[in-house]
Amino acid sequence: MITNYDVFVPALMGSGASLRVGMKARALGCRKVLVVHDQGLKDVGIADIIIENIQAAGIETVVFGNVLADPPDILVEEVAELARNEKIDGIVAVGGGSSIDTAKGVNTLINNPPPILQYFGYRTDLKPGVPMIFIPTTSGTGSEVTNMAVISCTSRGNKDSVMGPHCLGTLALIDPDLTLGLPAKMTAATGIDALAHAVECMTGGQVNPLSDALAKEAIRDIVKWLPIAYKDGSNLEAREKMINASMFAGMAFSNALVHLGHSIGHSLGATFHIPHGLACALVLPEVIEYSAKSEWKNVAMICECFGEKVQEDATWEEIGALANKLLREFIKSVDIPNMKELGFDLEKVIAIAPMVTGDAGFAIAPYRITAAKVASMLQAAFDA
Amino acid sequence: MITNYDVFVPALMGSGASLRVGMKARALGCRKVLVVHDQGLKDVGIADIIIENIQAAGIETVVFGNVLADPPDILVEEVAELARNEKIDGIVAVGGGSSIDTAKGVNTLINNPPPILQYFGYRTDLKPGVPMIFIPTTSGTGSEVTNMAVISCTSRGNKDSVMGPHCLGTLALIDPDLTLGLPAKMTAATGIDALAHAVECMTGGQVNPLSDALAKEAIRDIVKWLPIAYKDGSNLEAREKMINASMFAGMAFSNALVHLGHSIGHSLGATFHIPHGLACALVLPEVIEYSAKSEWKNVAMICECFGEKVQEDATWEEIGALANKLLREFIKSVDIPNMKELGFDLEKVIAIAPMVTGDAGFAIAPYRITAAKVASMLQAAFDA
Repeated sequence: MITNYDVFVPALMGSGASLRVGMKARALGCRKVLVVHDQGLKDVGIADIIIENIQAAGIETVVFGNVLADPPDILVEEVAELARNEKIDGIVAVGGGSSIDTAKGVNTLINNPPPILQYFGYRTDLKPGVPMIFIPTTSGTGSEVTNMAVISCTSRGNKDSVMGPHCLGTLALIDPDLTLGLPAKMTAATGIDALAHAVECMTGGQVNPLSDALAKEAIRDIVKWLPIAYKDGSNLEAREKMINASMFAGMAFSNALVHLGHSIGHSLGATFHIPHGLACALVLPEVIEYSAKSEWKNVAMICECFGEKVQEDATWEEIGALANKLLREFIKSVDIPNMKELGFDLEKVIAIAPMVTGDAGFAIAPYRITAAKVASMLQAAFDA
Repeated sequence: MITNYDVFVPALMGSGASLRVGMKARALGCRKVLVVHDQGLKDVGIADIIIENIQAAGIETVVFGNVLADPPDILVEEVAELARNEKIDGIVAVGGGSSIDTAKGVNTLINNPPPILQYFGYRTDLKPGVPMIFIPTTSGTGSEVTNMAVISCTSRGNKDSVMGPHCLGTLALIDPDLTLGLPAKMTAATGIDALAHAVECMTGGQVNPLSDALAKEAIRDIVKWLPIAYKDGSNLEAREKMINASMFAGMAFSNALVHLGHSIGHSLGATFHIPHGLACALVLPEVIEYSAKSEWKNVAMICECFGEKVQEDATWEEIGALANKLLREFIKSVDIPNMKELGFDLEKVIAIAPMVTGDAGFAIAPYRITAAKVASMLQAAFDA
């Protein structure tokens, strides 16, 4: 097998890294940058700190501060028009996945005409945009180091992705200080999203040694540090380990992609309107158990990253069952609710199975399965 | 601490990857490439396969097939003149570290006037060269993914480095097939060089989480697979694990650098004219033992990568002694000779200590030491 190691974003990692933003934007030759964030970051004061830092470096700012979750295409197109009219020469996105993905969508349209839906999928033929600096404020999405952005397509009523060099950041500033105020619930949900990236990219059809190495490191750190960050959000060491693990998981799935767990998560999210990290957690244990049929070696490795020794003569069913148990217990330990606790209706849950098989990530699943099998996994997760 | 993750080279990894060279050079827009290799690769037929593959893609080739070990500056300047006269628009280097480093030196001089010695050190202000594709045929140097080239300075009689974006490959083709014929002795020496990169960058003054993750993975694989590749060179799985581990170690030390072991290796190599991998192995166990004083956590981690459990209450001296023992045994297990077996004279060995403190890597050592301490480490390694 020949495999690619090719998605890399330079990063500056550590407490205080975000305060280099003005200096770094100036080093990239920027004179007028678009700053993209959501209202929440304004409320907690982080947006202003970043904007002032950029201005202090002698760079003009144009601010879009109304990012929406699951960024809709029409909003992306509107911000891109603002960016073009203002003749910005750089973008700084600060926030969670939605802010960073909005920036990537805008960058796609800087030198390519709208609408954005014509650019869905992996494209290398688009005109490049401007330098982008990404500053994540959650530890989950990994978007700061991936080459893809998830955009909601309003006309089709689904989510799709733009992917390619136009979505790669020029620099990521990974600053754990910015996550110190993240509420416990969001800490848990985004942390489990990072865990989902790591365990899915170790069990999909595109694993490679680099994604494996980074994903394993991410799992070990998440298992150790997420419960600590969840219980005590002010623990800087835990926050630093988590934001780094989230980035490693992002680097890993940039190279190896995620699969069925995210496909189910997307469908549950679209149907029940729950946050992405939570949606991806609900059936993750069953997805990894099913993966063990072909990917038992890596599923055993996942168990070992949880600190559990796997017997040499264990069958794939035993390995899968152990991984299911470990993941289920871990997800529960940070108080992620299950589908019953969320008040989901079983029939409606089962009904998403055909939608799952239409999701892009489904093709990366380690071996072909049917909607009926997906339905039985949904049932098992519901009963767990 | 704020740390950089910023040295990345895209790579294509796997059996047969080198046979994509023509296609990849064409995709990079090359019409006439300089192919750099040494006589040995011509003799075993690899050079011709690569050259024919490039020509079959419709690309002209200019061949320099006389690379020398520890590439001398005057030779690099000569090849650069050839490259400029021939108006090449790409470079393909196939071989060990010397071939790849020669290519990097040539690329430095494509658009910057000779002599090369004026460009020693880390430089970002040089004019860029041409796209470079690196095809390693040993599993040790890591040069295919680093941004530095070691060049012998004939006027000053030492080795120095050119470093910076002009030394980064555009693409690395990592093909284990090309290492199947590597003799056992070279397999061992280059494999121990990769191990030295990994353990030194875990114990120097510039460790970071990314270098740690990749270095640990490299150590685990080298410990498991080098003895197998050494005993049975035709084992493709072992060759694949080793060439990948060597690249991971290269990526790790690109981010974190190596230190005293390499400084001693350079001085021993210059004095006794022995290959680089062998030179770096001779005092490595003592270097890692000394590092334990400040880097005991990572030295304990190295022991664990060797499969050895470290007691929680172990002192740094105990951890250091354990690491020394594990490294010494492992190096011996692949029949790397020690200084006595090489017939070195103890007095001459001790006499290199002041030279070591002048080596660039010395500044990366985890804490300051004296020439006298280096001398005592040389003595200990001699007696081991």
